[in-house]
Amino acid sequence: MMPDKFHDECGLIGIWNHKEASNLAYLGLYAQQHRGQEGAGVAALDRERRHFTLHKNIGLVADVFSNYDFSALPGDGAIGHVRYTTAGGHLVANVQPFYARIALGNVAIAHNGNLVNTDPLRDELIRSGAIFSATSDTEVMLHLIARAARPHIPLSEVVISALSKVKGAYSLLIMFDDRLFAVRDPHGVRPLAIGKLHDAHVFASETCAFDLIGATYLRDVAPGEIVEVGSDGELKSYFPFPVERESPCIFEYIYFARPDSNIFGKSVYSIRKAMGYELAREHPVDADIVIPVPDSGVTAALGYSEESKVPMELGLIRNHYVGRTFIEPKQAIRDFGVKVKLNANAEVLAGRRVIVIDDSIVRGTTSRKLVQMLRSAGARELHLRISAPPTTDPCFYGIDTPSKDQLIASHKSVEQIAEYLEVDSLAYLSLDGLYRAVRSVKGKFCDACFTGKYPLGTPAAFDKRQRELFE
Amino acid sequence: MMPDKFHDECGLIGIWNHKEASNLAYLGLYAQQHRGQEGAGVAALDRERRHFTLHKNIGLVADVFSNYDFSALPGDGAIGHVRYTTAGGHLVANVQPFYARIALGNVAIAHNGNLVNTDPLRDELIRSGAIFSATSDTEVMLHLIARAARPHIPLSEVVISALSKVKGAYSLLIMFDDRLFAVRDPHGVRPLAIGKLHDAHVFASETCAFDLIGATYLRDVAPGEIVEVGSDGELKSYFPFPVERESPCIFEYIYFARPDSNIFGKSVYSIRKAMGYELAREHPVDADIVIPVPDSGVTAALGYSEESKVPMELGLIRNHYVGRTFIEPKQAIRDFGVKVKLNANAEVLAGRRVIVIDDSIVRGTTSRKLVQMLRSAGARELHLRISAPPTTDPCFYGIDTPSKDQLIASHKSVEQIAEYLEVDSLAYLSLDGLYRAVRSVKGKFCDACFTGKYPLGTPAAFDKRQRELFE
Amino acid sequence: MMPDKFHDECGLIGIWNHKEASNLAYLGLYAQQHRGQEGAGVAALDRERRHFTLHKNIGLVADVFSNYDFSALPGDGAIGHVRYTTAGGHLVANVQPFYARIALGNVAIAHNGNLVNTDPLRDELIRSGAIFSATSDTEVMLHLIARAARPHIPLSEVVISALSKVKGAYSLLIMFDDRLFAVRDPHGVRPLAIGKLHDAHVFASETCAFDLIGATYLRDVAPGEIVEVGSDGELKSYFPFPVERESPCIFEYIYFARPDSNIFGKSVYSIRKAMGYELAREHPVDADIVIPVPDSGVTAALGYSEESKVPMELGLIRNHYVGRTFIEPKQAIRDFGVKVKLNANAEVLAGRRVIVIDDSIVRGTTSRKLVQMLRSAGARELHLRISAPPTTDPCFYGIDTPSKDQLIASHKSVEQIAEYLEVDSLAYLSLDGLYRAVRSVKGKFCDACFTGKYPLGTPAAFDKRQRELFE
Amino acid sequence: MMPDKFHDECGLIGIWNHKEASNLAYLGLYAQQHRGQEGAGVAALDRERRHFTLHKNIGLVADVFSNYDFSALPGDGAIGHVRYTTAGGHLVANVQPFYARIALGNVAIAHNGNLVNTDPLRDELIRSGAIFSATSDTEVMLHLIARAARPHIPLSEVVISALSKVKGAYSLLIMFDDRLFAVRDPHGVRPLAIGKLHDAHVFASETCAFDLIGATYLRDVAPGEIVEVGSDGELKSYFPFPVERESPCIFEYIYFARPDSNIFGKSVYSIRKAMGYELAREHPVDADIVIPVPDSGVTAALGYSEESKVPMELGLIRNHYVGRTFIEPKQAIRDFGVKVKLNANAEVLAGRRVIVIDDSIVRGTTSRKLVQMLRSAGARELHLRISAPPTTDPCFYGIDTPSKDQLIASHKSVEQIAEYLEVDSLAYLSLDGLYRAVRSVKGKFCDACFTGKYPLGTPAAFDKRQRELFE
Repeated sequence: MMPDKFHDECGLIGIWNHKEASNLAYLGLYAQQHRGQEGAGVAALDRERRHFTLHKNIGLVADVFSNYDFSALPGDGAIGHVRYTTAGGHLVANVQPFYARIALGNVAIAHNGNLVNTDPLRDELIRSGAIFSATSDTEVMLHLIARAARPHIPLSEVVISALSKVKGAYSLLIMFDDRLFAVRDPHGVRPLAIGKLHDAHVFASETCAFDLIGATYLRDVAPGEIVEVGSDGELKSYFPFPVERESPCIFEYIYFARPDSNIFGKSVYSIRKAMGYELAREHPVDADIVIPVPDSGVTAALGYSEESKVPMELGLIRNHYVGRTFIEPKQAIRDFGVKVKLNANAEVLAGRRVIVIDDSIVRGTTSRKLVQMLRSAGARELHLRISAPPTTDPCFYGIDTPSKDQLIASHKSVEQIAEYLEVDSLAYLSLDGLYRAVRSVKGKFCDACFTGKYPLGTPAAFDKRQRELFE
Repeated sequence: MMPDKFHDECGLIGIWNHKEASNLAYLGLYAQQHRGQEGAGVAALDRERRHFTLHKNIGLVADVFSNYDFSALPGDGAIGHVRYTTAGGHLVANVQPFYARIALGNVAIAHNGNLVNTDPLRDELIRSGAIFSATSDTEVMLHLIARAARPHIPLSEVVISALSKVKGAYSLLIMFDDRLFAVRDPHGVRPLAIGKLHDAHVFASETCAFDLIGATYLRDVAPGEIVEVGSDGELKSYFPFPVERESPCIFEYIYFARPDSNIFGKSVYSIRKAMGYELAREHPVDADIVIPVPDSGVTAALGYSEESKVPMELGLIRNHYVGRTFIEPKQAIRDFGVKVKLNANAEVLAGRRVIVIDDSIVRGTTSRKLVQMLRSAGARELHLRISAPPTTDPCFYGIDTPSKDQLIASHKSVEQIAEYLEVDSLAYLSLDGLYRAVRSVKGKFCDACFTGKYPLGTPAAFDKRQRELFE
Repeated sequence: MMPDKFHDECGLIGIWNHKEASNLAYLGLYAQQHRGQEGAGVAALDRERRHFTLHKNIGLVADVFSNYDFSALPGDGAIGHVRYTTAGGHLVANVQPFYARIALGNVAIAHNGNLVNTDPLRDELIRSGAIFSATSDTEVMLHLIARAARPHIPLSEVVISALSKVKGAYSLLIMFDDRLFAVRDPHGVRPLAIGKLHDAHVFASETCAFDLIGATYLRDVAPGEIVEVGSDGELKSYFPFPVERESPCIFEYIYFARPDSNIFGKSVYSIRKAMGYELAREHPVDADIVIPVPDSGVTAALGYSEESKVPMELGLIRNHYVGRTFIEPKQAIRDFGVKVKLNANAEVLAGRRVIVIDDSIVRGTTSRKLVQMLRSAGARELHLRISAPPTTDPCFYGIDTPSKDQLIASHKSVEQIAEYLEVDSLAYLSLDGLYRAVRSVKGKFCDACFTGKYPLGTPAAFDKRQRELFE
Repeated sequence: MMPDKFHDECGLIGIWNHKEASNLAYLGLYAQQHRGQEGAGVAALDRERRHFTLHKNIGLVADVFSNYDFSALPGDGAIGHVRYTTAGGHLVANVQPFYARIALGNVAIAHNGNLVNTDPLRDELIRSGAIFSATSDTEVMLHLIARAARPHIPLSEVVISALSKVKGAYSLLIMFDDRLFAVRDPHGVRPLAIGKLHDAHVFASETCAFDLIGATYLRDVAPGEIVEVGSDGELKSYFPFPVERESPCIFEYIYFARPDSNIFGKSVYSIRKAMGYELAREHPVDADIVIPVPDSGVTAALGYSEESKVPMELGLIRNHYVGRTFIEPKQAIRDFGVKVKLNANAEVLAGRRVIVIDDSIVRGTTSRKLVQMLRSAGARELHLRISAPPTTDPCFYGIDTPSKDQLIASHKSVEQIAEYLEVDSLAYLSLDGLYRAVRSVKGKFCDACFTGKYPLGTPAAFDKRQRELFE
C-alpha cells in the first residue's frame, strides 16, 4: 500500500442462498483486499438451525483465513468485511462483521462508511444503559437495531426504524436469522452492487468481487434503497426515506478502486482514463515522455499519452516483494520507504523531459521523494500532472484522510506546492474536468475533499483521537 | 493438564495503586495459570487520563504476553483474568476482562463463577434492547452495571444495584475510571483474597499469586462483601445483601489449586494432606507401598503414607515436556494420551502390593488406563484410594464438569467402579472424612458435586450447548 | 510469482568494505527478491577477528530477516543469496551462502548458475572421502576450493585451481577471511555487476540492487574474469582460463529480470521494448487494442503499441494482494489460480479485436485460461503475440524450466498451439527478431532454450529427481 | 529446565525394522526430551529405495514435529536425536542427526558424548581437504567414516576403522543404506540400551523411551561394543578395540535422568533413593521435616526421610506452566527466575527446622535464592543436604558444565559454601557413600566431576568458545 494517499476504509461482500456462502464471501474479500488491509471477517448463517458463526481477526484476508476450514462457517448465507484503519490502533474489537444476539434473534452487520451523528447517538444510547465495547459507528447501528425490535413487526420495519436515526454515509449488509438486508444511505455515498450467481444473490462494494466468484452484475443498490432477500430468494425493495440529493463519492474513481471494477454503474477504468484525456487537454506540456506513478497512475497516464501523443514509458518500476517490515541501515537518510517500493528507470529518464502522472498529492512528502529519485536518474525536466483537483479537505464519510492542516493543498497554492516538490511545473485537473471525465455535472457527486462542501454535514465534534482511546 | 478431571474455570488478579500494575497483573496470572489455560487478559487504567487499555487473547499467559511491552498497558490500576473452557468453542469474544464504555465512563470486569439466573436476565435485557456479543455471564453483569448507572449516585450503589439482580456464584473485580471493586457473592462460593504490596492493594483468587509478586496476604473478601478502593487507597467495605448461608466450594481444596495457596483462609496443602490422613484411617489396606497419581495426588499420598506407615514411592513418573499436540503411530491402540504424560516405574511396582492415591474419578477412563499401566509394570495388587467422596453431580457454580450421565459415580456403585477399573479394591473418602480434613462441619461448604444439594439452586434450563451456539 | 513461466534460480549480492555490510546485503537481496523466493541468506565477515557469521533460512527475504538485528552479522564484508527452487523439495540444507571451515580458514560462497559436470566431480570427490550434506553444485565448489588449498600459495591460485575443474554456468561470490572474489564463468552465462558505494565495492546479479543501496554501476565482471578485492580495497583482475565463446543467457532479458536493471551492460527495459517493436513489425494484425499480460508483458506491449499504432489498454488487472495459499470452493472448476491473480477488464475488451502480448508460453495451461477469461469478458478476436521465440528446450545453466516434454512448443507447431489455446491467431518473435532487439547477432548469446544448441554442453545424465532425493 | 545444574547433552533413539520407524523415533525423543531441549531431528531410511529423509530443527520435539506428517519420513529404519547446548549459540547446523552422501552411499549419524581429540582430528582432516560446516564432534566422525570407506570391505570394518581414530566418550547410532550400527566407546561413558518391539530392534539412551513405545529392554550395548543389525534383523556384535577400564558416567544417576529409566542396567530411581539413605546415614540432623528441591531432589528426599524417619513435606511447589520468556517488572530485584518456577510453601515451613535435599550445587546462585525464599516463608533452621559429592571439576565427556572457576565447590570449602548460601548447615554425600548407593566401588565409574580424575584424558586445548565462533 502506498503511503501518503487517501484510502478506502472498507469493503463488503454478501452471499445469499449458496451452499458455499462463507467460502465465496472469503473470495469476495480477497478480490476487495485493496479496500482494507487491517482486518477481515466473515459471518455465516445456517438458516435451518438459525445458527450464526463468525471468524474474524486483524490481518490480511489470506492471513486471517490461512488454512481455514470453511465447514466451520456453515450455511448458505454469509457476509464479509475488510477494514482499513488509520492510526496504530489495531483494535481487534473493531474488526467486522459485528455480531449480536438481540431480542429478534441473531444479527450480524458489516458497514462501509461513516456516520456524522455517532457521538450524540452513542451518548444517548449510553445514557439509556447501552454498553459499547468498540469504537466504531457500526456498534451504534447494532444498538439501534436491537432497540428498534418490537414483536410482530417485520424486520424491514426494524431496519427502517433504526436507520431513520442515523445520519451520514453508509452501505450496509445486515443478516438476520432468515433474511439479509443490503442498504445504501439516501445520499448513496458509498457503493454497493448486486450480483447473481445461479440461484444466489451476491452483494459487493466493487464488482471485481463478482468476477472472481463468477457472478454477474445486476445493478447497484440505489441510494436510499433497502434491499431485502429472504427464504424465497426474491429481492424486495424499500425506499422509506425522503428523497435527498444523491452524493456518491467521486473519489472512489480516483484512486485505490480496482480499475476492473464498476462503481456507481460506471467503469473505473474508463473514467480514470478519461481523467487522463482531460488532464492532457487542460494542461499540455512539451515533453518527451509520459510516465505514471504505479500502479494507480497507470490508467490516467495511458489516457494522457493517448490524447497528447506523447509516448508513455515506465519510468518508475515497482518492487513486487515489499514486505511489512524493512530494516534500514543505521546511517541511512530518513525514510527509505518509497525507494523500496519504486525505483527510477534511468534508461527512459536520462536526459528526457518527463510528464509524471499521479492521481493525488496528499501531504506531499512522498511526491517530493519521487521527484528527487527521478532527478537522480537523469530526468531533465519534470512536469507533474495530477489527474484530480487539489485535495484540500478531509473526508468524514468513509475515506481515510489526514486532517486538513496536513493536506498540502489546503494551505499552499499550486505554485507553492510545485516549489516544494521541486518540479518544473505542476498542474491539477480542474473540478470541471473531473466531472467531464465522470460524464456528470457538478452537484451530482460528493466532492467535499476538493471543495469543502459537505452534502451530509460534518460531525459536530469530530475528534478521531477521542474515539480511538481504547485498544 | 490432566484429562478427565474437574477444572476450575477462572483465576482473577487485581492491582491498585502500583506504577507497574499491568506487569504485576500479568505475573499474578502467571502464578494462577493452572486456574485457566484457554485465554488470558489484562485491562489497565491510567487514572489521571481516565484511560483504559486492554490486551487479551486466546492462549496461555506466556503466549498472550510473549514479548509484550507493558508500557502499552499504562497506569497504576489493572485487573487480569485467566479462563478455562470446556468445549472446543474457543471464543475470543469470551476472553476476559470485558471492557465497556457506559454512561458512567469506562468499566472493565473480570469474573470467576457462574450465575444461575443468566438466562432470564439475558432474556429480559435483550427484550429491552441490549445486545450480546459473547456468551458468558459476565456480559450480563456488564449490562446490569450499565443500566444501574444513575447520575449523582455513588458507584458503590451502582454495583450493589446491579448485583442485587443476579443469583449464583461470582467473585468479581470491577474497575471504573477512579476506583476498583472486589466482590464475592453472598454464599462466598469462589475465593478472592486481598493482599498488600507497599502502597498497593492486590486481589487474587489464590494466594500463590501474592507470593510471586511479593505481596502479603491480608484477608479474604468476605462472602457477600463488596470491597471498594479508590484514590485514597483505603479499603471500604459494604455488606448490602441479606445474610445467607456461606457455601464456599469444597472442591477448591481437592484438585487443581496450587498446594502453596491459601483458599478461604486455609492452606490447601494442609487440608489435602489431612485428606490423606482421613483416607488412611477410613480405608486402610495391607500393602507394601503407597504411590500418588502425580501431581495432584502427591500431598494426599504423603498424608496417607504418614498415617498408615506404608512407605510412599514414586510409582508413576511425569514427563515434564508434554506439548499440546502429540502424533501417535497409526496402528497404536487408541488413546496414547496418558502414557505420554505418566510412565509406570517398574522398579518400585514389580511384585508389590500397591495403594494408589488419586483425588477423584470423573469418567473413569483415565483411571482405567493408569491401572493397566501399573499392572503391566508388575504391580501385584492395586488398591485405589480416592481422597474425596464420589463425584456424582455436575457443578453449576464455576467448576467445569461433565454432565451427570458422564460421571461414573452417578450410575455405578463403588463395587461396580472397582470392577470397571479392574482394581483389587477401591475406596473413597467419606463426606464426613472430607469435612474433618477441612476442619469444618457439613453444611458449611458447597458440596453439591458429592451430594447433589445445590445451595444456590440450579439454572432453570441449563443448556450449555445452547449457550455455545456461537463462535 | 506467475505459474507456468521460466524462472531465474538465484540472485547474488556482495558488499566489501562497508561498516553496514550485512544490512546492505539484505537490501540488495530485497531488490533482487524476484530472482528467488525459496530461501535467503547473508554471510558476514568481521575481518579484524577473521570471524564469520551466517543467517539464512527458507522464505522470502522479508521473512528470513523479519525484525532481524544486523549487529548479529558484524563486519564490513558480506555476501548474500536468494534462491529459487522447483519441486516441493524445500531443503534448508540447500539455502545459500554456504560456509565452511577449511585448511585456509573460513570461506563462504554464493552461487548463481548450474554446472554440467557436477555428477562426475561429486562422484570423484566422494570416492576420495568427501561428504556431501546438500544437493547443490555449490557444495562441489566448496570441496574443490578446500582441496585446492596449499600452504604458501595465494588464494587467487586456489580459486583458479578449483574452478579449472568445473564446467558450466556460474557467477560466484567467494569470501575468505581477508578477501572477496567475484567470478563469472568463461562463457559469462549468468550476470554479475560491479558497483561502488563510497569506499565500498558492491556486486550484484542485477543493477536494481545498486539503485536501492545508492551504489553506482561500474561495469560487469567479464566472462571468465576473477575479480579479487582485499584489504587495500583495490580490484585485481585475473583471466586464467582459455578464451571461450561468450554465451550470456539471452533469456535474462525476456522475463523476470526487473526492467530497471542493466544486465550484461544493457537495459532490460529498452531491450524488452525493442522486442515489442520487432514483434509488431514481424507479426502485425488488424486489431482495436493491444493488451499486456501483467506484469512482465507490459514493456513489450508498450513497444508493440508504439510501433503498430494500435492503442494499449489494460485488459488484465492484477490483484496486488495475492497470498501464498488460497482456499477454493469445493465445487469450483479446477485451477482457480490465475483468476485470483488477474482479472479481465470487460470495459476495454467487450466487442474488441485484441492483441495480447506475453513473453512466453511454457506449458500453455495458464495461457489457455487467460484466453478463456478474455473471451468471457467479451473480446471479439484474440491475437496472441509472444515477444520471444518458442521455448522448445530446457535450460541446464541456471534457469528453472520444465523438462522438454512439458514444453508445449517442443511437440506442437505454432498452429497446433494456437488451436490448443483457442486464439484467433498466434505468432512468436523470430530468433532473428530477438537478436535485433538485443542489438546483437546470433551466436553471441546462449539461446539454447529456443534452439536446443547448448554452448556448454549438457550434463551426461542430468537427472534432477536423482539429485533431489533428499530432504 | 532448572538453571544452574549440570545437563546431559544429548539423547538418542534408533528403530530398525518397523513400518512406523520415524513416528516411533519421534516418540522415543519425546520421552527423552529432558536430555536435550535445543534441537531435535529424525533421519529415516527407506531400505528398498535406499532413500534417506531427514527432518530436524531447533526447538523442542513437540515444536519441531508439530503437526508433522510422518509419511514424509518413510521407511522402516530411523534414528533420532535431541540436543542440549550451553551458550546462546543455537546453531541449526549443529542439530542432529547428521546426514551425508559418501562413497559408500548414504549415512546418517546421531551422537551422544564428546571426543577429546576432536581438534587434532579436525585439523588433520581440514589439512587434507575436508570442509566443516558445523562445530560438533559428530561432523569429525562423519568425515572419518567417509574416508575409511574402501570398496569390497564390509561396513563394520569401515566403522571400526573410523572409530579407531577417535578418543573420548561416545554413544552412536550410525545408519547406512542397509544396516544400522549402535556403538558405545570402550569406556562406556554414555549409556545406550537395546530393546525389542515385535520384530523391531530399538535403541535408546534411556529405557523410558522403550516404555512409551511399548518396547522391552533387552540389554545395554556393552562398553566398546559395536552392534550391527541389517536385513536379517539379527544383532551382530563386534568388540574390535583393546579392553579398557570401564568408566560409565556416575553423574547420569544424580540428576536429570528420568527416575523411571534404567541406565547402565540399573534403576535410576532406586540408586537415587539409596543416595538419600546414605546421605541420611552420613549426615543426620535433628529437624522437623525433610523437603526436596523439585523435581530432581524428590527421590533422594524420599530416601532420606525413610532412613531418618524425619517426615517429608513439599516445602517448595513447582509452577507447571513456566514458559520460555517471562517479563519482569522494571524495578524487580534481578533474577526473578527461580521464583517463577518454585514457590515456598509457608504452611509447612513456618517455624520448622528444615532439611532441604538437593542433588547438586553448581554455581550456588540458585541455591542461595532458594534459601532466601525458604527463610522468608518462615523456616527456622535450614540444613542443606546434597545427595552427591561437591562438583569441583567440569565434564569433557558429554555433560554440560560451567568451567572450573565457576563451580563453587572448586574454590570454596563446604563451610564457605554454607556461609555463602546462608544455611545453618551444609553437607554433601561422600564419594564412598555415592558408590555405595550405586552398589559399586571406586574406579568402576567416571567420577571426574567430583575428583578431577579423567579416565579418558582431557582435550589438549579445550576451548569451547573457539568452537562456537560460528552461528
